[in-house]
Amino acid sequence: MTKEKSPFSLNIPEIKSLLKINYEVADLSSAYAVLHWDQETYMPKGAIHGRAEQLATLAGTVHKIATSKKVGRLIESLSKKEEAGDLNLCDRALLREWRRSYEREVKVPKRLVEAMSRATSVGTAVWQRARQESKFSIFKDVLQKIFDLKIKEAEHVGFAENRYNLFLDDHEPGLTTEFLDKIFAELRDIVIDISRKAHSANYHIDQDILRKKLDEKELWDFTIAVLTAMGFDFDRGRQDKVAGHPFTTGFHHDDVRITTRFREQFFTSGIFTAIHEGGHAIHHQGGDAALSRTAIHQMHSLGLAESQSRFWENYIGRSAAFWRHWYPRLMQSFPGAGFEAAHEDDFVRAVNKIEPNLIRVDSDEVTYNLHIIIRYEIERDLFANRLKIGNLPEAWNAKIKDYLGLDVPSDAKGVLQDVHWSHGSFGYFPTYSLGNLYAAQINRKIRSAFPDFDERIAKGEMIFVRDWLRDNIHKHGGVYGVDELIKKVTGEPLNPKHFRDYLQDKFGKIYHF
Amino acid sequence: MTKEKSPFSLNIPEIKSLLKINYEVADLSSAYAVLHWDQETYMPKGAIHGRAEQLATLAGTVHKIATSKKVGRLIESLSKKEEAGDLNLCDRALLREWRRSYEREVKVPKRLVEAMSRATSVGTAVWQRARQESKFSIFKDVLQKIFDLKIKEAEHVGFAENRYNLFLDDHEPGLTTEFLDKIFAELRDIVIDISRKAHSANYHIDQDILRKKLDEKELWDFTIAVLTAMGFDFDRGRQDKVAGHPFTTGFHHDDVRITTRFREQFFTSGIFTAIHEGGHAIHHQGGDAALSRTAIHQMHSLGLAESQSRFWENYIGRSAAFWRHWYPRLMQSFPGAGFEAAHEDDFVRAVNKIEPNLIRVDSDEVTYNLHIIIRYEIERDLFANRLKIGNLPEAWNAKIKDYLGLDVPSDAKGVLQDVHWSHGSFGYFPTYSLGNLYAAQINRKIRSAFPDFDERIAKGEMIFVRDWLRDNIHKHGGVYGVDELIKKVTGEPLNPKHFRDYLQDKFGKIYHF
Repeated sequence: MTKEKSPFSLNIPEIKSLLKINYEVADLSSAYAVLHWDQETYMPKGAIHGRAEQLATLAGTVHKIATSKKVGRLIESLSKKEEAGDLNLCDRALLREWRRSYEREVKVPKRLVEAMSRATSVGTAVWQRARQESKFSIFKDVLQKIFDLKIKEAEHVGFAENRYNLFLDDHEPGLTTEFLDKIFAELRDIVIDISRKAHSANYHIDQDILRKKLDEKELWDFTIAVLTAMGFDFDRGRQDKVAGHPFTTGFHHDDVRITTRFREQFFTSGIFTAIHEGGHAIHHQGGDAALSRTAIHQMHSLGLAESQSRFWENYIGRSAAFWRHWYPRLMQSFPGAGFEAAHEDDFVRAVNKIEPNLIRVDSDEVTYNLHIIIRYEIERDLFANRLKIGNLPEAWNAKIKDYLGLDVPSDAKGVLQDVHWSHGSFGYFPTYSLGNLYAAQINRKIRSAFPDFDERIAKGEMIFVRDWLRDNIHKHGGVYGVDELIKKVTGEPLNPKHFRDYLQDKFGKIYHF
Repeated sequence: MTKEKSPFSLNIPEIKSLLKINYEVADLSSAYAVLHWDQETYMPKGAIHGRAEQLATLAGTVHKIATSKKVGRLIESLSKKEEAGDLNLCDRALLREWRRSYEREVKVPKRLVEAMSRATSVGTAVWQRARQESKFSIFKDVLQKIFDLKIKEAEHVGFAENRYNLFLDDHEPGLTTEFLDKIFAELRDIVIDISRKAHSANYHIDQDILRKKLDEKELWDFTIAVLTAMGFDFDRGRQDKVAGHPFTTGFHHDDVRITTRFREQFFTSGIFTAIHEGGHAIHHQGGDAALSRTAIHQMHSLGLAESQSRFWENYIGRSAAFWRHWYPRLMQSFPGAGFEAAHEDDFVRAVNKIEPNLIRVDSDEVTYNLHIIIRYEIERDLFANRLKIGNLPEAWNAKIKDYLGLDVPSDAKGVLQDVHWSHGSFGYFPTYSLGNLYAAQINRKIRSAFPDFDERIAKGEMIFVRDWLRDNIHKHGGVYGVDELIKKVTGEPLNPKHFRDYLQDKFGKIYHF
C-alpha cells in the first residue's frame, strides 16, 4: 500500500533501509501490544509468568533491532543528508523520531529492557490483586523493584540534573518539571477559582439519577451505538470488556481496540469511558495509511493523544447538546429505569457536578486536575529522593486531604487506584492535564469552524467532528511536533487561558455564576 | 521454575546456550500463536493485511534466530558430546529436535518463510470468504501461490525422490508415502469391512434426536461442564468461539486455548468439538513444567497429538458409558427439548450411526478415514504433478463419489470444507488417521489398566483418564520419539489390528453383527 504513493523519499537508500527496519520494529511492537491486550482481556490468570517471559523476549528483540549498529549508521548518514537539505518533511520527521529513540535506547542494556518488561507485566497482575485486597503492602515490593529499574535506566541514559525530566520527556518530548511547575501553578489557580465559584453559588445538584443499576448488555449496546455515531470504524477495531484499567491500543492502522469497564459508582462511567477511549481510537484510526508501520503514524505526544480522548469525553460527551440527542435514546434503551421522571437538563447537570472525588477517573473535569497535580508532585518527589516508595500511602493521603479535603478510607480508593506505576509509567500523569489544556484550545477552534456545532451535535451528528479532527490533526501523525501542530491548528502555542474560559462558560451556566 | 530441578545438564555450557535460544524462539513462536488465535477469534476483519505483515515479521525473526550460525555451532559441538556419551536423555532429545529443525530450516531463505507466512494468513481469510460464497474460483489463485511456495521450499530443502515425503515428515517425523500406501490399504480394508457389515445388518438408526436447535449459551455451559469434568484446567486455559475451523493452541505450559463452533448439522457437533479440542488441550496442559519453553515440552508428532483428541472424542465421548452420566445432564440443561422422549441408548446409537457424509468433521468414526485417504491421495498426486490446483474440485468430487458414493453439491461442501491448505499444511491430514490407529492401541492399554473403566466413566469420573494419559504419555513431551513411546506405553509398535478389533466390538454391538 505504502509503495504506490509513499510520502518518503524512497530513492534515498538509507530512507528505504530505515523504513524496512521500522516496519520490523512496528510489527514486533504490535505483537507486544496484542499480548498485552490479551493479558488484560482474555488471558487465563495462571498464564501470567509465561506471558511475562514472552513480553520480555519481545521487548528485548525490539530493543536489539532498534539499537543495532546499522540503525546508528543510517541515522548518522541521514543526518548529513538532512543538513544538506536532501530530506523531505516526512523523511525529517522519521529521522527525528528514530534519532531520539536511538540515542536514548542505545544506552540502555537489553538485559534491563527485558527485566523492566518482566517486572511490569508481573507488576500489573500484583497491582490488581493488591487493589482487590486494598493492601499497598502487597504491591510495595514489586513497585520498589520497578522504581529501582527506572533509577538504573536513568543512570544508563544520563540526565542533566533532574532524573524525572527524562521520564517526562518519554511521554511528552521536551517536557520538564520547570515547565510543569509553572503551568500547573496556573492550572491550580483556574481549578480553585472555578471550584470556589461553584461552591459559593450554593446550587444543589442531585446525582441520584446516575446511581442506577442498569442491564450491562443494554449499556454495552448503548456504547456501541455512541461509538458508531462518533465514527469509530468497527471493521478496523473493536471494543472489549476489561477487568483492570480501561485503555485503547492500536496494533496497526487497521486494528485499533478499545477496552471498557462498567464498575464505578455511576452507570454513566462506562459510557464516558467508551467515549473517552473512542476518542483515542478515532485518533489512531485517523492516521495516514501511508505512514502505517512507521514511527510517525502517530504523534509521540501523550498530551496531544489525551486532548483527543478528553475532547470527546468532556467537550462533547458531557455537553447539553450531546444529551439532547442521546437522553431520549437512553430512555428507549432502559424503559423501566425511570429516566422519564427527570429532565434532560438535570441529567446534564448531574454528569457535570463539581465535587471532589477520591477516584481520579470518577472526578469532574475541574477537580480532576488536582489529582494530576498530586501525582505529579509525588513522582517529582520520588525521583528527587524526597519521598520513599514505602511512604507512598501516607504522602498520598496527606495530599488528598490537602488538595481535595477528603479522607482516604483505604489503599484501594487511594494510592492503589491507578495502574500506571505498575507499568513503570512514571511521568505519564501530567500529560492528562496537558490534554485538558490542548483540548480547550482545539475546542475553541473547531467551534469557530462550525458556528452550528451544538445544533449538529444535538441532532446526533458527530462524523463532522471526526472528519475535522482527522483533517487537522490525526492525518498528520508525527510529521510535526506537538508545539508546531498546535500552533498550526489553533494559531498560538499552548495557552491555559482557553481552559479557564471554557470552564467559566460551561460551569457558569450550570451553577449560575 | 526450570532452574530448580532442571532435567537438562546445565553444567554443559552448550546446553545452557541452546536452552536460552530455545526460550527466545519459544516466546516469539508463542507470540505468533497468540496473533493467530486472535486472528481467528476476535480480530476485526479489516485488520487482515496488517496482521499478515506482523505474522510474517515474527516468522522471519524466529527463522533468523533458529538458523543462526551460533545454533549451527552449538549443534555441532553437542553432537560430539552426544557421541562421547556425555548427554543425558533430555539433552539428547533437545539436540535431536534442534538438529532436525536446523538442518531443514537453514536451507530455507528467510524471505521465503516470510512470504509463506504472509500468503497463508491472507490465504485463511480468502478461504473463509470462498467457503462462504461456495466458490473455489475465489480461493484458487491464493492456493496456487501457497502451493508454488511449498514447491520452492522443497527445492531449497532438497528431497530424495518424493517431495511430498518432506511435508509428511514435517508433521510426523519419518512418515513416507511408502508407509502410508501400505497402512492406508489396511485401513481401507478395515473401514470397508465394517461399513459393509453395518450396511448388511439393515438396522435403522434414527438421528432426528440430534437435529434440535438448542440455546447456544446453554450448549456452551454444557461444554464447559464436560471440559471441567475431563480435568481441563481453566486457570491455565480457556475456550472461545471461532467462526472458522476449531483448533487448540498452546502459548505456554500455563496457557492452552480451545476454540469451538456450534454450526454443523447436529447440535452435538459443538459438544464433540469441545471434547476433541479438550483432548488436545489436556495433552498440552499435561506436559512437564520443567520442559516448558523448550522444543521437547510437546512431542513433534501430530499423529500422537491426534490420538489424544480422538481418544477423548470417540472412545470416551461417543461411548455408551459417557452418556449414561451425561444424557441426564443434557435433559436437565434443556428441559423443554424433548430428550425425555428418547432412550439414552437411542441417543448413543444416533451419535454413532455409520453413514457416509460429505463433511469430514461430521463423519462417523469409520467412514471418516475414507476422507483422510481421499485427501492423502489428492495431496500425493498434486506433489507428483499428476494433478493441478485448478482441477481440484473435479478430482475431489470424483473421489467422494468413488469412495463414499456421494454427489458433491457445492464447493463449500466439497473441496473448500477444510482450512488446512490455506495454512500451507500439506501432509497434515494423514496424521488424523494415524491418530485413530494410535488411539485404538492406547484405548486397549488403558482399559486393561482400569478393568472398571466403563463403570467409572458412567459415574461421570474422568480425571483418572487424564491422569493416566498424563503419567504415561503427556509428561514425557518429546523426550521419546512416537514409535518409542507407543512401544513403551502399549508394548508393541503401531498395529492397525487394534483399530479393527475396536470397531468390530463397538459397532458389532450397535448394529448387531
